[in-house]
Amino acid sequence: MRQFNIDTIKSWERFYRANFINCLTGFKPVSLIGTISPQCVPNLSVVSSIVHLGADPALIGYINRPIAAAPDTIQNIEQTKSYTINHIAAHFLPQAHQCSAKYAPEINEFEAVGLTPLYESDILAPFVKESVVRYQMELVEICPIQYNQTFFVIGALQSVFIDESIIGADGFINLEAAGSILSLGLDGYAAAKMITRLPYAKP
Amino acid sequence: MRQFNIDTIKSWERFYRANFINCLTGFKPVSLIGTISPQCVPNLSVVSSIVHLGADPALIGYINRPIAAAPDTIQNIEQTKSYTINHIAAHFLPQAHQCSAKYAPEINEFEAVGLTPLYESDILAPFVKESVVRYQMELVEICPIQYNQTFFVIGALQSVFIDESIIGADGFINLEAAGSILSLGLDGYAAAKMITRLPYAKP
Repeated sequence: MRQFNIDTIKSWERFYRANFINCLTGFKPVSLIGTISPQCVPNLSVVSSIVHLGADPALIGYINRPIAAAPDTIQNIEQTKSYTINHIAAHFLPQAHQCSAKYAPEINEFEAVGLTPLYESDILAPFVKESVVRYQMELVEICPIQYNQTFFVIGALQSVFIDESIIGADGFINLEAAGSILSLGLDGYAAAKMITRLPYAKP
Repeated sequence: MRQFNIDTIKSWERFYRANFINCLTGFKPVSLIGTISPQCVPNLSVVSSIVHLGADPALIGYINRPIAAAPDTIQNIEQTKSYTINHIAAHFLPQAHQCSAKYAPEINEFEAVGLTPLYESDILAPFVKESVVRYQMELVEICPIQYNQTFFVIGALQSVFIDESIIGADGFINLEAAGSILSLGLDGYAAAKMITRLPYAKP
């Protein structure tokens, strides 16, 4: 076991440091966020910073990178209030990963990467048809994080599209059966295998 | 595929709904946060809402539940500014999970659950000796989230303790070799197996 202090870490080459720090927090849930611009251009982005905020009300957050690096998703959300979150499975991982490329705002990223947009009634933003766990969000607040020009985007869950067969008798979702994958670092992807469920812990 | 709208979801029994919504965001990184009170009582909490905020500066956030539900960690962080984040591996999962029990503030949770505190020089908060990927954080800001009384806690990475053998030539950390596990929903745990790493995507 070796200690690396922040001065050492700061001295590392940029990509080495980014790999290391992006891995440090662990395997992450990874999804595609679907949006549409006011000019009706659909957009997809790969997001691995989705975080559960609470079940009642049902709130979910994610970190949007700085505007210069990732403008389309946050601008579409700001303007339309509507977005979808779509789990990624291994069978469309190459197409999903390709959504991390920085396409011009006028490019339809579904067409560019080869995924299928799915529009549900009364929902503005497109879903990813290939995804088997997908949900609809409505913007609650965009909180700027002053320290690094990122944004904490808070949304309220509106509806969920899912195969009933993977929902357990107690509401637990079998995401191993759904094939929902994880990301690690900047460019790694992993599959999950359930170990156990443990009883509610009491002192 | 079936659609469940938010009114249906709200009508569900509380634990069924909590299981469902906690699963919805996917498999999550899970770690133990180590703190110490001004009265020198060490504390541990299980946190599955850790999120990477940026590599330069190296910032990491997590969501702290409302004070009434989880007072000790956030109060210790507020008072001492110091905390540690420790990956969980399968061999000490039962002890780690037990840290989710709501112990009284005067209880030393390392003793209560059977984990080993490790104090490193010049670092106030205790690490978990059983953990093989652990890092030291310093509080940057606690942002209250008004919608559900949770808190977004932002910290700056200070140092990392890790076995050099799991750091790749490009800075990527082999967390599969480290055995870092994931959580799902309220009480599920999973192991991760790498699928691939993909090249940087360009349009």
